[in-house]
Amino acid sequence: MCVDEALEGLVRSNGGLALLRGHRVVLRSDLESIKGKVALLSGGGSGHEPAHAGYIGVGMLSGAVAGAVFASPPPGSVLAAILTLWKGGASGVLLIVKNYTGDRLNFGIAVEQARTQGVHVDMVIVADDCAFAQPSKAGRRGLCGTVFIHKIAGALAEKGCPLDEIVARMNEATKNIGTLGVSLSPCSVPGCLPSFQLPPGEMELGLGIHGEPGIKRSKVASADEVVKTIISHMTDSSNKSHLSLKSGDKVVLCVNNLGALSCLEIAVVSKVAIHCLEERGVLVVRVMSGSFMTSLEMGGMSLSLMKVDEEMLRLFDAKTTAPAWPNLSTASVSGRNMFMKPEEKPAAASDNYNEGSLSSVIRLVLESVCKILLEHQEELNALDRAAGDGDCGSTHALVANAIQEWLHTSRIPGNFGQLLAELALLVQQSMGGSSGALYCLFLSAAAPHLKQNCDGAAWAKALHAGTEAMKRYGGAEPGDRTMLDALCPAVEELMKLSTAVPPDGHIAILQSAVEKADLGAEATRNLTARAGRASYVASEHLTQPDPGAIAVAAILKAILNALKA
Amino acid sequence: MCVDEALEGLVRSNGGLALLRGHRVVLRSDLESIKGKVALLSGGGSGHEPAHAGYIGVGMLSGAVAGAVFASPPPGSVLAAILTLWKGGASGVLLIVKNYTGDRLNFGIAVEQARTQGVHVDMVIVADDCAFAQPSKAGRRGLCGTVFIHKIAGALAEKGCPLDEIVARMNEATKNIGTLGVSLSPCSVPGCLPSFQLPPGEMELGLGIHGEPGIKRSKVASADEVVKTIISHMTDSSNKSHLSLKSGDKVVLCVNNLGALSCLEIAVVSKVAIHCLEERGVLVVRVMSGSFMTSLEMGGMSLSLMKVDEEMLRLFDAKTTAPAWPNLSTASVSGRNMFMKPEEKPAAASDNYNEGSLSSVIRLVLESVCKILLEHQEELNALDRAAGDGDCGSTHALVANAIQEWLHTSRIPGNFGQLLAELALLVQQSMGGSSGALYCLFLSAAAPHLKQNCDGAAWAKALHAGTEAMKRYGGAEPGDRTMLDALCPAVEELMKLSTAVPPDGHIAILQSAVEKADLGAEATRNLTARAGRASYVASEHLTQPDPGAIAVAAILKAILNALKA
Repeated sequence: MCVDEALEGLVRSNGGLALLRGHRVVLRSDLESIKGKVALLSGGGSGHEPAHAGYIGVGMLSGAVAGAVFASPPPGSVLAAILTLWKGGASGVLLIVKNYTGDRLNFGIAVEQARTQGVHVDMVIVADDCAFAQPSKAGRRGLCGTVFIHKIAGALAEKGCPLDEIVARMNEATKNIGTLGVSLSPCSVPGCLPSFQLPPGEMELGLGIHGEPGIKRSKVASADEVVKTIISHMTDSSNKSHLSLKSGDKVVLCVNNLGALSCLEIAVVSKVAIHCLEERGVLVVRVMSGSFMTSLEMGGMSLSLMKVDEEMLRLFDAKTTAPAWPNLSTASVSGRNMFMKPEEKPAAASDNYNEGSLSSVIRLVLESVCKILLEHQEELNALDRAAGDGDCGSTHALVANAIQEWLHTSRIPGNFGQLLAELALLVQQSMGGSSGALYCLFLSAAAPHLKQNCDGAAWAKALHAGTEAMKRYGGAEPGDRTMLDALCPAVEELMKLSTAVPPDGHIAILQSAVEKADLGAEATRNLTARAGRASYVASEHLTQPDPGAIAVAAILKAILNALKA
Repeated sequence: MCVDEALEGLVRSNGGLALLRGHRVVLRSDLESIKGKVALLSGGGSGHEPAHAGYIGVGMLSGAVAGAVFASPPPGSVLAAILTLWKGGASGVLLIVKNYTGDRLNFGIAVEQARTQGVHVDMVIVADDCAFAQPSKAGRRGLCGTVFIHKIAGALAEKGCPLDEIVARMNEATKNIGTLGVSLSPCSVPGCLPSFQLPPGEMELGLGIHGEPGIKRSKVASADEVVKTIISHMTDSSNKSHLSLKSGDKVVLCVNNLGALSCLEIAVVSKVAIHCLEERGVLVVRVMSGSFMTSLEMGGMSLSLMKVDEEMLRLFDAKTTAPAWPNLSTASVSGRNMFMKPEEKPAAASDNYNEGSLSSVIRLVLESVCKILLEHQEELNALDRAAGDGDCGSTHALVANAIQEWLHTSRIPGNFGQLLAELALLVQQSMGGSSGALYCLFLSAAAPHLKQNCDGAAWAKALHAGTEAMKRYGGAEPGDRTMLDALCPAVEELMKLSTAVPPDGHIAILQSAVEKADLGAEATRNLTARAGRASYVASEHLTQPDPGAIAVAAILKAILNALKA
């Protein structure tokens, strides 16, 4: 039931696919385009999605036959697919079958029955499993390496290559493919118990794609160690099902998520697998990573390798419209420089600026701000403990310390734009958290409006730009119980700098701005927090003013005091 | 640490990508191609792979900045990325940011600092979350719908569209995007506990991509019900963050695996989501399904919808080399006929064949075979209980009953090829299991060599072909303790039919073949099972002959007896 729904979901989503009515068979919807070419058919039990129907498209499969979950499909459906492709005008039909007894038998019956009806049909069996050092009579299992055969055979068929030649070349190609997997957790066929038990912290090497047992169970190791174990076992010449791999060989690597590993984990495995192969002198020419031949939601992965020459690589790179084929680059993986040199900001400002006439004033102002922040550290922490994580004073102290350190070791830029940019960097590096980001935003957005000598209008513009940036990126507004409740009324007052006569007029405006900030900070006592961490605290517990607003008011007061002195 | 390895894995695997040294920044490796065009930069915390670096390529992003798992990246890295793109010759840089406070602030700082340096830079914020009926001050979260913006903005940038126009159009486009997710199990940041607790059998609706809590918890429902709930909530006009969707609207649907759902489950969700939308009169024009914006290994999925007009659809369909972009068809999903009529085998043979001169003989032979199989049912079951699942007699009885039924209701083809094909179908439909498949293979492969009147040579050829098919597809050989141990020596004897003079010569050879089969079957007593189910049983427990071989010998004897009589 879920198999039918899944097939319908796949086919409905992809215009290149169609369902054969009455069967679990998906075919290319443009069968007219395979006229005179070899049609490729694959399939097997469900639960391995995107295999097999996801590989249907121009340049890959012409069709796929699905069984129930982990069960081989009935020969009647395989035969219906073969006949539809044949009568659609294919010059021959090739079945690509994974080496499992059920699939061999059921696809085999359809092949024999199709031959009875005069169809030019053949079968290639893929047996890429490298797990068993002494394979049983049933031989190596067919695993994710089958997808390589889908691709290579598909490219040959699209080129118009005849059936017998494709069969011969695929029987060669399968010898150059190997796969080995590892699992951290089992999968469950819908409605059944998990396929095997694996205690937490253990992993199983060499298992199949139906939850069949593997060859070795061990403690979970690092990605690095797991990949090394896999590649060693796969290529160990004492293992009768090994893939012989030597320095100088070129390979395509497929890192296959068996189901439930995160994409992050798969990317890590890709990195270590490429590294491990390159250490052996192997050239990794292409890497495909993702979900290609899954085992329902098994928490595991497999590595497949295919040795290639130039021609095989061209076939691998050929275009396909198959929905599950990844968007791969045709650049070689090994031997490429993958690093780029960043364009950094211009060399630290301190190296290329001079102090100006106001540098000594700025120094006094900054010293005053640092002093007041350090004095208020405990008060701010206490206020913050009632509303947040209690570190508001400490984070302000961090930046105060950083500025003090900077004052001891650096020249003070006379250019106010440079000064604010420099302070933004200090805040960014020392303060952290949302408050750090907000101060940094304020300073960064204000800086471009200021230069060496600037009038009140420039300051007004800069302060406005800084405040707007805080609002825009931070998403809060005055009234939300944040630092803006002190800052905004003060900046509104400071807008008057545009027209006031310096210096007395400026000081008077700053004096009045400080008073506004104090009032605003004090008034946060009665506000409901709607932004920042305090918004998660019930408002009846917020009886004190917002520490961020208090800190802003304190900074403004420190600036005023220094300028007055 | 795992973030750096994962980024390296992605970049190494994809020739179109490069790493910015010293930063968690991935850029297009062909920066020269973005000269004069707008560069697109996205990013955010890691753990959402393939977002964001997987969307880098021609026609999508120019770069992506990664933070630690679920943590916003530092502004210094965002700035380095902006400056590198700008100095590489981009005509402007657009930052595409998901609406989370951390990302807004950190990307915002970089924007402001880049502006200070004269970069033409802007930011689009994506807030596609439809979960909260009353969104908080922070607004709707940015989720998987962001990938739509990567694609559309990327296509515009590739076409040479200027920055301001892209910004304006993306600010419009984001209004037509909505996303809602559901989870069955939480995710765990590496080294941390799971992000939330969800009892088995419960699911959580409307959660974010960092394991933040959702809006509603309920019992796990069917895919159908879950999808209906999601789409209803997403489009409910009383929900302040809803996406307004009406009959006749065209949408692109994205079915996103949040991590650990199986591909099978995702395909089922695609099917029911398309159905649910079409029931509302919505035209689903494209479907992308897979892992696009994950939340580590969370067992959940999200649905994203983007309303599109013809032009938006053209942009969506535009080519891209981004490794995580799927291979999509440009055919409309809704309104397409997705069914194809199968070419079945020619109408059942019984409708178009005549009985022949030997039909009465065949009837006697088949009646004899059925009788002997039914007589031996319990004996075969008993033998099988020692070695397998004890049903060897029962499965043979099934086919005997089917043949008896067929003998009562059908004409008997005089053409032996038709006869064997007909019997193959009866076996295939009634018997099941590997033995059924093997008999069916034998009959199917033998049939093409026989016709209305055929001599001993044709029979020899047919029997040989049948036996070879059993060996080839079944993978066993004489000596493996299977039915082949009776069949092969008998067929070897029957090869003499090629030259013998009928009818007495033929009967003598059949007599001798039956004796060989009996001997072969009896001798399996001393063989180790190397194929079939008995190969899992220790050989010291296998002291009786193989039931499959005994059955074959019995069938041959029944044929001989009937022919003699």
